[in-house]
Amino acid sequence: MVKNARVGQPNYFASGSINRSGNLRRDPGWLADRLANPRTRILPLHGSEVALVGGDLVWLEIGDLPAGQALGHDEEGVVFLGVDGKGGAVFGIDLSAPELVELDLPLPGDSSRTDLRGAAMLLAPDAGNHVAYLSAMLTWHRRHRWCGVCGRPTTPSWGGHLRTCSACGAEHFPRTDPVIIVLVTAGESCLLGRQPIWPARMWSALAGFVEPGESLEDAVAREVGEEVGVAVQEVVYHSSQPWPFPMSLMLGFHASAGPEPVNITVDRSELDDARWFARDGMAEAVADGSVMLPPPFSIARQLVDSWLTV
Amino acid sequence: MVKNARVGQPNYFASGSINRSGNLRRDPGWLADRLANPRTRILPLHGSEVALVGGDLVWLEIGDLPAGQALGHDEEGVVFLGVDGKGGAVFGIDLSAPELVELDLPLPGDSSRTDLRGAAMLLAPDAGNHVAYLSAMLTWHRRHRWCGVCGRPTTPSWGGHLRTCSACGAEHFPRTDPVIIVLVTAGESCLLGRQPIWPARMWSALAGFVEPGESLEDAVAREVGEEVGVAVQEVVYHSSQPWPFPMSLMLGFHASAGPEPVNITVDRSELDDARWFARDGMAEAVADGSVMLPPPFSIARQLVDSWLTV
Repeated sequence: MVKNARVGQPNYFASGSINRSGNLRRDPGWLADRLANPRTRILPLHGSEVALVGGDLVWLEIGDLPAGQALGHDEEGVVFLGVDGKGGAVFGIDLSAPELVELDLPLPGDSSRTDLRGAAMLLAPDAGNHVAYLSAMLTWHRRHRWCGVCGRPTTPSWGGHLRTCSACGAEHFPRTDPVIIVLVTAGESCLLGRQPIWPARMWSALAGFVEPGESLEDAVAREVGEEVGVAVQEVVYHSSQPWPFPMSLMLGFHASAGPEPVNITVDRSELDDARWFARDGMAEAVADGSVMLPPPFSIARQLVDSWLTV
Repeated sequence: MVKNARVGQPNYFASGSINRSGNLRRDPGWLADRLANPRTRILPLHGSEVALVGGDLVWLEIGDLPAGQALGHDEEGVVFLGVDGKGGAVFGIDLSAPELVELDLPLPGDSSRTDLRGAAMLLAPDAGNHVAYLSAMLTWHRRHRWCGVCGRPTTPSWGGHLRTCSACGAEHFPRTDPVIIVLVTAGESCLLGRQPIWPARMWSALAGFVEPGESLEDAVAREVGEEVGVAVQEVVYHSSQPWPFPMSLMLGFHASAGPEPVNITVDRSELDDARWFARDGMAEAVADGSVMLPPPFSIARQLVDSWLTV
């Protein structure tokens, strides 16, 4: 496993065991052969909802498809994820894709559907990576069926990792949106904000999309300036996390605003509120429920926890 | 200016002096008022080409427009960049936009057009940021004129920072593609590769797009594994850089492959060649031209230089 020098454990949703095998994506013959193999594994999602049985992912095999049904490697809703630890090809499918709704898949009778956040509370990290990867890919496909350059239909190839315009030939690659997320600290305090739609008492690190022409450090300074009117003095990278809501890449930082908390000016068009929290007493406030932090699978929580336990 | 704890100077193309003023983007009345002010400044690009006079950016003012000509804040090819240090609004325009080709702009007679790389060799960092920001925005507009969800036309708003589908209402925000770039080191050596299209003797750090479901550290490990067959053991973030070719975000790392150089297996479908370079003698090889490195404005060069001068 890759280790960032600053972080012992990969963040949830990252670092799965599937080898993406970029070269095999581009081999239509190999992909077709794998999709004809009854032992090839398939991970089914329904849009961004996950099928679970007893807290585990539902997997199917090509051999489970009813007689006469098959999947094409360049078909809408079919994505080649890579090769698993045993050398077997792994594909994902989108049961909500119009082209696949007729597919009569034998999902277990006791399977239930849950959204990605619910699944992240249940699934082991490796399974969490699989659903994050596939969900982001499927969202990208749904949002790029037509060419942004000329307005004509695009068609998938490379096992679902490329869409090409049928008219102008423009190539479209899977999109990932970089988002900075930052825990601002000042001495023994940290700055948390809350969005209006969040549950009461829920607080988190500040975050925002990186804009064209910005470095990550620029984006951190701009977001903190915009949202709470605070100037950051030192910006230190912590770790990153794929964030499939719907297809972001979270880039986590700690930033210092000086030795003592400074006055803040909350942008009420962005945040419901923001304030400084003293390190002393924070763990107790979380334990007794008077402060709610984001779930443990989120990089936001990792940024707070790593600061609390410095 | 923001300082990353690891890097004293911001990378070129980053950290410009324009305040993006996200809230003002959403105020059509304010934008219209600024575009009616004869002193409002305009930065003209022609696609991704920059107009220069004597090595400086060509700027225009609204008052320079011929009588009867005006710019709209929701017009194709017009982007609100932000507010400058004197409180004046700054807009960028794309002279290659079909809607603006009739605009009879009084560019200085001695101005010349150059591409972004050429401009980056000439322009001061602040001007370099302006053109990187605007060029990436204009590329995004050109590639998102139609809705990827439903294939109908999209129209710009928010001073060119949002496109909305005229039919399904889908919102499209400026895209930035995250790319990792990594200098792999082993003791006193670093690993550089070269692409087939590069000039002879040109070598650089390895790089590749981050894929959905990957952390940055995952992407570093995968790219290094794919391109040269080397397993990285420690992955340390260095800095980041907006990279307007055409609209990427470079995320720079150093990665260790162990105490001594290991055997490499070059993927010839990706690279022309790759090899280890000893630190000892590297500066001399660069000085005498037997090794060419990327230009000083690139994060690739910063990764190499910062390692050479450790």
